[in-house]
Amino acid sequence: MEADKLQKYCGISRNIEESSVNIHPIQRGGVLTSEAKKVLLSFGDGYSMCDYCFEASITKVKKPPVVDFIQDLAKFLDIDEVRPTAGARHAKRVIMEAIAEPGDTVVIDSLAHYTTYISCEAAKLNVKEVPHSGYPEFVLNVEDYATKIEEVEDSTGKLPVLVVLTHVDYNYGNLSDAKRVAEIAHKYGIPFLLNGAYTIGIMPVSGRDLGADFIVASGHKSMSASAPIGLLGATSEWAERVFERSKIKGDWSGRTFGAKEYHILGCPPVFGPSLATLMASFPKVVERIKHWDEELEKACYFSDNMQKIEGIKQLGKKPKEHTLIHFESPSFHEIAQHHKRKGFFLYDALKKKKIMGVHPGLSKSFKVNVFNLSWEQIKYVVESFQEIAELYGITVH
Amino acid sequence: MEADKLQKYCGISRNIEESSVNIHPIQRGGVLTSEAKKVLLSFGDGYSMCDYCFEASITKVKKPPVVDFIQDLAKFLDIDEVRPTAGARHAKRVIMEAIAEPGDTVVIDSLAHYTTYISCEAAKLNVKEVPHSGYPEFVLNVEDYATKIEEVEDSTGKLPVLVVLTHVDYNYGNLSDAKRVAEIAHKYGIPFLLNGAYTIGIMPVSGRDLGADFIVASGHKSMSASAPIGLLGATSEWAERVFERSKIKGDWSGRTFGAKEYHILGCPPVFGPSLATLMASFPKVVERIKHWDEELEKACYFSDNMQKIEGIKQLGKKPKEHTLIHFESPSFHEIAQHHKRKGFFLYDALKKKKIMGVHPGLSKSFKVNVFNLSWEQIKYVVESFQEIAELYGITVH
Repeated sequence: MEADKLQKYCGISRNIEESSVNIHPIQRGGVLTSEAKKVLLSFGDGYSMCDYCFEASITKVKKPPVVDFIQDLAKFLDIDEVRPTAGARHAKRVIMEAIAEPGDTVVIDSLAHYTTYISCEAAKLNVKEVPHSGYPEFVLNVEDYATKIEEVEDSTGKLPVLVVLTHVDYNYGNLSDAKRVAEIAHKYGIPFLLNGAYTIGIMPVSGRDLGADFIVASGHKSMSASAPIGLLGATSEWAERVFERSKIKGDWSGRTFGAKEYHILGCPPVFGPSLATLMASFPKVVERIKHWDEELEKACYFSDNMQKIEGIKQLGKKPKEHTLIHFESPSFHEIAQHHKRKGFFLYDALKKKKIMGVHPGLSKSFKVNVFNLSWEQIKYVVESFQEIAELYGITVH
Repeated sequence: MEADKLQKYCGISRNIEESSVNIHPIQRGGVLTSEAKKVLLSFGDGYSMCDYCFEASITKVKKPPVVDFIQDLAKFLDIDEVRPTAGARHAKRVIMEAIAEPGDTVVIDSLAHYTTYISCEAAKLNVKEVPHSGYPEFVLNVEDYATKIEEVEDSTGKLPVLVVLTHVDYNYGNLSDAKRVAEIAHKYGIPFLLNGAYTIGIMPVSGRDLGADFIVASGHKSMSASAPIGLLGATSEWAERVFERSKIKGDWSGRTFGAKEYHILGCPPVFGPSLATLMASFPKVVERIKHWDEELEKACYFSDNMQKIEGIKQLGKKPKEHTLIHFESPSFHEIAQHHKRKGFFLYDALKKKKIMGVHPGLSKSFKVNVFNLSWEQIKYVVESFQEIAELYGITVH
């Protein structure tokens, strides 16, 4: 390898947060707090949380107070036991591996993130989807969980091993009734996994109130933490299974690893910026979910005013119950057909106004997330979209 | 949760690298380069590498140039295909899941890291250990791989599915002859996994020269990256299996995810500081392995001079072939018996001299890593140990 060609890797940089209003659909909840930024440098090194590890587990470290933090995370999720993982997807994978056998079936919502599907695939499980209502609202009929559970039993002779609900989905930002899904799952004696990647750290969620047996959360998606870090929460009933301690024994050496929880591969290797930023952001995260009402007010304002642009229509449930918003925009798409930059015209026009996060090239439909933007920013973004529309001769009502 | 009790999480701090000479056995190779520290802040956010993702894969991102970087990592490991993972442990787990069936057997070295064992356990595989020579050198007899492979075949009627060697082990820092293990494995037609967590990024390693079918590496252990990030390398022969694309299909929606490699759960969620620091440190990492001879010279100097202290004996192979060094220290242990701080006296004494990394409380034996310390630092640490010994009446020859 030629040394001079490698130098470009040192020069990577990014200043989107500092220079723009970022409305990227998957980024808003992961933007670091100022407190998190402060700890980034001091905990940047690989094993920087492990200086005082006395019990062979990052979750037991007292300095910094990880051991207390893990307890507080459990209180925050309102579930008995919590472990950090390398992301929500790893948490889902662990649950499936721990409680299912190859060939078993998992009932999932058809709005689920792709990682729910491929976690099942990796664990050699079949999926049975609960349908949604389709265009334009894409609403999950949670009562269908019962139907689907019974269909699985009828066709395989065995109940599904797990019921999964994506609390808020990644595509339309629809909030589903988790409590009702839990009731249905429990009626059949099936454990219920709530995927809170888009809700935990953003809005109030109580595992206990909702009846979740498992919760997964994402630090980098919704808890203002550096990637990758997720959370796996379990009730005490299930914790023994998913956090089962290692029993393997070296046949020659006799070595054993009884302190290690083997499904999560022992210490989740989050012992640098991931865990440090999750901790440092936590007090603000605990505080911010109390103001969810105002976030929704801003989301509704944003959606309503975007829809004053001719042809712009919000997809998903109305009024908004989450800050992730999907719009279809045939009027923008019409412009793109005749523009020399095609669909990129929208990205270009927004960039000129220092608004980043709409996927470059998209004009037919696009997603944004307005979480944690100020009213001033919300208004600025809406007005900018309206100005761009007018510039291209689209009526704004 | 009471807000005032949470404030402690914002106040976590660490300044070991700045204020001390750090000789922590697992930390030296993960200490960030100055280039990595520079990118930490700008890529601190959750999805900061994903601003310009057009192909639903972090490995295809062109800005910053991840797509080129992945190619360069493959050249660096000298293997056909490489993917980032959430750590070496996840890479091992993925390989085992992808190529083995529950009940299969894996032949591993008895010096392997615990994550090798529990990766097997998670995949429901049996382990067969290759013995080591025991005290004081703990040398693996690599020829025993053949014996163990045959023992597995004799007792189970089936050859092992995988042969694993820990290139340099975590306990004694012994380097084993990977090329010979590869030859043995291949004689039986078994793929060979080289665990380079302690070698790749530290010393020159060529997957091709050593005959590795799979390589795992650790960014936070040996490539000056923030945790967690690892690498999974595979030859083209095996890449299709471990990086197999998703085939699962939603039974109602018909959704498919053909761009996603399901064993690694799609995009490895390393899209923040982990990948950014791995990239920024890479040019220096490529350079530093060229100076491995001098690192070994320093390690030998360190070991020789430590052993001038009465009772101190280096364990593992001599002369050192790695910078991780394990000492037994009965003379220090003797002091600890009568000291009011017990074994902590050694940690205290070193701390007073601004030397960190010896496990607090240990005096009977301890591990250090002197990788990337300057000669001045090496000499300072040795002299400090000698001074501490003399202070407690231990002869220094």
